[in-house]
Amino acid sequence: MNDRRYRPEELHGFVSEVFRKLGCNEADAAAVADVLIAAELRDHASHGMIRVKEYYELWKTGRVNATPEVKVVHETPSTAVVDGDRCFGMVAGMKSMKLAIEKAAATGTGWVAARNSNHFGIAGYYAMMALEHDMVGICLTNANPLVAPTWSVSRYLGTNPVAVAVPAMNEPAFVADFATTPIARGKLAVAEKKGEKVPLGFVQDADGVPSDEPGILRQGGSMLTLGGDRIHGSHKGYCMTAIVDIFCSVFGGANFGPFVPPSVAYLPVLETKTGEGTGHFFGAMRVDAFRPASEFKEKMDEWITTFRNATPAKGQEKVLIPGDPERESEKRYRRDGIKLVPAVVDDLNGIAAELKLNF
Amino acid sequence: MNDRRYRPEELHGFVSEVFRKLGCNEADAAAVADVLIAAELRDHASHGMIRVKEYYELWKTGRVNATPEVKVVHETPSTAVVDGDRCFGMVAGMKSMKLAIEKAAATGTGWVAARNSNHFGIAGYYAMMALEHDMVGICLTNANPLVAPTWSVSRYLGTNPVAVAVPAMNEPAFVADFATTPIARGKLAVAEKKGEKVPLGFVQDADGVPSDEPGILRQGGSMLTLGGDRIHGSHKGYCMTAIVDIFCSVFGGANFGPFVPPSVAYLPVLETKTGEGTGHFFGAMRVDAFRPASEFKEKMDEWITTFRNATPAKGQEKVLIPGDPERESEKRYRRDGIKLVPAVVDDLNGIAAELKLNF
Repeated sequence: MNDRRYRPEELHGFVSEVFRKLGCNEADAAAVADVLIAAELRDHASHGMIRVKEYYELWKTGRVNATPEVKVVHETPSTAVVDGDRCFGMVAGMKSMKLAIEKAAATGTGWVAARNSNHFGIAGYYAMMALEHDMVGICLTNANPLVAPTWSVSRYLGTNPVAVAVPAMNEPAFVADFATTPIARGKLAVAEKKGEKVPLGFVQDADGVPSDEPGILRQGGSMLTLGGDRIHGSHKGYCMTAIVDIFCSVFGGANFGPFVPPSVAYLPVLETKTGEGTGHFFGAMRVDAFRPASEFKEKMDEWITTFRNATPAKGQEKVLIPGDPERESEKRYRRDGIKLVPAVVDDLNGIAAELKLNF
Repeated sequence: MNDRRYRPEELHGFVSEVFRKLGCNEADAAAVADVLIAAELRDHASHGMIRVKEYYELWKTGRVNATPEVKVVHETPSTAVVDGDRCFGMVAGMKSMKLAIEKAAATGTGWVAARNSNHFGIAGYYAMMALEHDMVGICLTNANPLVAPTWSVSRYLGTNPVAVAVPAMNEPAFVADFATTPIARGKLAVAEKKGEKVPLGFVQDADGVPSDEPGILRQGGSMLTLGGDRIHGSHKGYCMTAIVDIFCSVFGGANFGPFVPPSVAYLPVLETKTGEGTGHFFGAMRVDAFRPASEFKEKMDEWITTFRNATPAKGQEKVLIPGDPERESEKRYRRDGIKLVPAVVDDLNGIAAELKLNF
């Protein structure tokens, strides 16, 4: 194990250079770096540096456009549709969320659907962009299909995350950012590598029988929605995942459910299209469109303090507020530096060699 | 068992008369009846005729105002806050959702937070009001606290439902309406009456130990969030329930979480207030604020057809679209009439006698 730790700034610098080399302009390269490094800092390594190679490979196949013309194709005072021109997802993400924020400044709320985009990193990044404007931020994305609707064996939905960020006054913001499945795809891969079984409620086999095999996806299996089985409310998880998919595809004209393109180059391009690329959905709501901002934020402080002081269950130390664990990680990684697993370091060295950069 | 079946119209007529007798004007009495009968038709009896007695008892204690002045207290082009003046929840619900729809007609989307309200029936009713306007409807409400955040034993959250209705062209609309807990409170009561245990994942005891006792809530226990336990993603259910609570309380100034007033008269008024009454949140989004309505609705048809044709798991007949089961029930009950359980019939007869009405 390599014990080298990286300062976020040096990783940011390297990622920016890589994407500049691919043809991105400075702002777009910085956007990709911003979101990937934020994922590392927030301890979502599955959406961090490991993606550099995946994005690079996707770009090599020509599926991603490093010099896109990202355009607003339709708008009203509180809504817009953005076409990402097959961009790296962060480019559409930044532009769309900024537009949502501008619209909210003018009319109270702003809602932007993006199509023709690609994997955009952590949804929470975009939701949090609203915070400094005293707005609530919302971000959804669809993703390549791995998840079966309740009572089905068809891999028709992604792990479609929901992110909501709510500003507070003296307390840190409430930031929820969660996949609408019990676990992330990456955790299955880890369990499989370790030769471990997974608890029931995560995956099923090709017939729809509950399975504890983390590798079952490669044998026609599928992931389950939040709730796990019908008795435990998997149909509610299905509703959530489906809502995210519809908001990200049908509003803006991106592909839906089974037709969302893969975010990795080793999976083939799908033959059928129901729209353009991957889709996202962004919202910004000015808190003072409802009540004075100071009142809103003080009330959020009260909400956060109340919940933080809830009585822990026996054996638990404390009750968490959404966003607490990520904030702790960020503090730690900024102080101690970010560790990367050897395979990722190897990938980055390989890319550096190919692009004649130093890592 | 009484085999009498009631036509929806006769139940509607009776409920309207009851609420007229309590002092409601004609429109408000009809609003209460509309939503309660819709719940019966959609097979959500827990939110139907059984509530007449509960609302009546709440009104008797003076906690509900039958002649409220429901007011818009703040607004921007796309947002508003409505004060319900302690109304029956349906009165605030109807006014707020209509306002959201008006704002969406003008600016693309409309978002209304309501405070100082009470139990308003099924959230799906309000979300569906958007459909005939070619809008997506959204409705959330907080509710009296029974649910513990992950790692806590404090009953700090309600079963806070989410409803989202999306119009289609030739297919019936997509209508999701679900509590953000594995099961509804009412199902625990039914299991308890039958002397049955419940599966693990629904409730925990006062120490936070998983329990199969449906009566555990009366011994300091609490309901769990969707996901059931941390391993199966209960923290994601906690995020959802918390988001609903914040949207319904902090935006409009209603009570949050532990301070949401009880919806039944036999529970005492809480000593602490963090806002006014129960809170709801309503959204309407014009689909043609994003793309031509016909395009949007045809794409929804395609979404619905695709998912309806997903491969069923072994032993399952078909895959459902959110809203399918309720639509089936509605057809059946409109044809065959609505059955009421004897206890509810007795309650309604009692109320009729007290108010000198015929049931």
